[in-house]
Amino acid sequence: MKALVFDLDGTLVDSVYQHLTAWAEAFRAAGSNVPLYEIHRRIGMNGNHMIDALNSALHLQITAAQKAALIEAHADNYENIRGLVRVFDGADELSRTLKDLKIGMAIATSAKRDLAQAFLNMLKLDDSVVVVTADDIDRSKPSDAQFQTAFAKLGVNPQEAAAVGDSTWDMLAACQAGSLGVGVLTDGYSREELSSSGAVRVFCDVRELLDRLPELGVIQK
Amino acid sequence: MKALVFDLDGTLVDSVYQHLTAWAEAFRAAGSNVPLYEIHRRIGMNGNHMIDALNSALHLQITAAQKAALIEAHADNYENIRGLVRVFDGADELSRTLKDLKIGMAIATSAKRDLAQAFLNMLKLDDSVVVVTADDIDRSKPSDAQFQTAFAKLGVNPQEAAAVGDSTWDMLAACQAGSLGVGVLTDGYSREELSSSGAVRVFCDVRELLDRLPELGVIQK
Repeated sequence: MKALVFDLDGTLVDSVYQHLTAWAEAFRAAGSNVPLYEIHRRIGMNGNHMIDALNSALHLQITAAQKAALIEAHADNYENIRGLVRVFDGADELSRTLKDLKIGMAIATSAKRDLAQAFLNMLKLDDSVVVVTADDIDRSKPSDAQFQTAFAKLGVNPQEAAAVGDSTWDMLAACQAGSLGVGVLTDGYSREELSSSGAVRVFCDVRELLDRLPELGVIQK
Repeated sequence: MKALVFDLDGTLVDSVYQHLTAWAEAFRAAGSNVPLYEIHRRIGMNGNHMIDALNSALHLQITAAQKAALIEAHADNYENIRGLVRVFDGADELSRTLKDLKIGMAIATSAKRDLAQAFLNMLKLDDSVVVVTADDIDRSKPSDAQFQTAFAKLGVNPQEAAAVGDSTWDMLAACQAGSLGVGVLTDGYSREELSSSGAVRVFCDVRELLDRLPELGVIQK
């Protein structure tokens, strides 16, 4: 194992339910009666893809113009509540611990850089950490494009790395990228959902992952 | 099959995520850093029991006075957002459909009567529907006391009925009561979590349950 690539929202910071609230309010304002668990299950995709997925599964008949308005409303609503988001226990120790073990670290997020920056600051990242945002590559999960970009920037093959995420979409992207997928439960998915989407290991949270790094093939000298 | 007893929050009305928001804000104001998925997983218990469960699992060291304050803060926070709660598709057809089929119906909720009343009104219930709230019996899920009270008021044995709910705590209570447990996915639990807590059938939502009543042993004349 040479490197670990982490998703940001829901994996390192506790923001999934704030995103859910922001999307729920956007759909409500647009007059779409979408059950909240259906939104919850699709967070972790990028916004464009998430709306397409809901549109298709629930036959919502959302137009292109309505889609653009939903994305804007979500961004506005989220802006008002993102100050509530906290870093998960252990997340701000990851980069130091992995550096000591000579394991590369990257963060791959479908958020834009300016939105991610406040969280990245809270994570006390070592300068060596590679960060891939929507500013670097727009195609994001369930596409493997962001994980691939992270592996390339780290200079590792996908087979020598693992992608850590909280959603089934992270696991799909990890599989497609040809790397191991590792799940954490902090999004609200069950172990079985993450396993059946390709996760080879599932931890409660990044704290447990840190305590069990040897179980990911990380050699602790 | 002679009767169906339904949970209210998360089963008939889409209120789980509003409860989660209200609890999250209460814990935040009290200075407890509780990951939101840990709260989500315990909604559906009554508030007292939920705090005990979090306290024990996460070693929060919450005192009796803090517990009372958390319960009050949740109630206040929830009051501000419960106007956002909507009835799930099909929920307002249940009592008419079941009456036509001569199947008894009850609703058993750990909410107090005055809090439940607005939702009960939205459900357009037939007068024959039995309602059990926290005003009738304070012990609620995961205790089977409320389901037992509902079966008694309906005049059916638990073995002749099913209890329908959205959380693992509903399924535990159904098992303990000696009735079939039937799950719906509208809380955000996975099929596997509901099944492994005792659900003998899992439907997406009450709309699907309505469309598949024969699969619960309900005879449609």
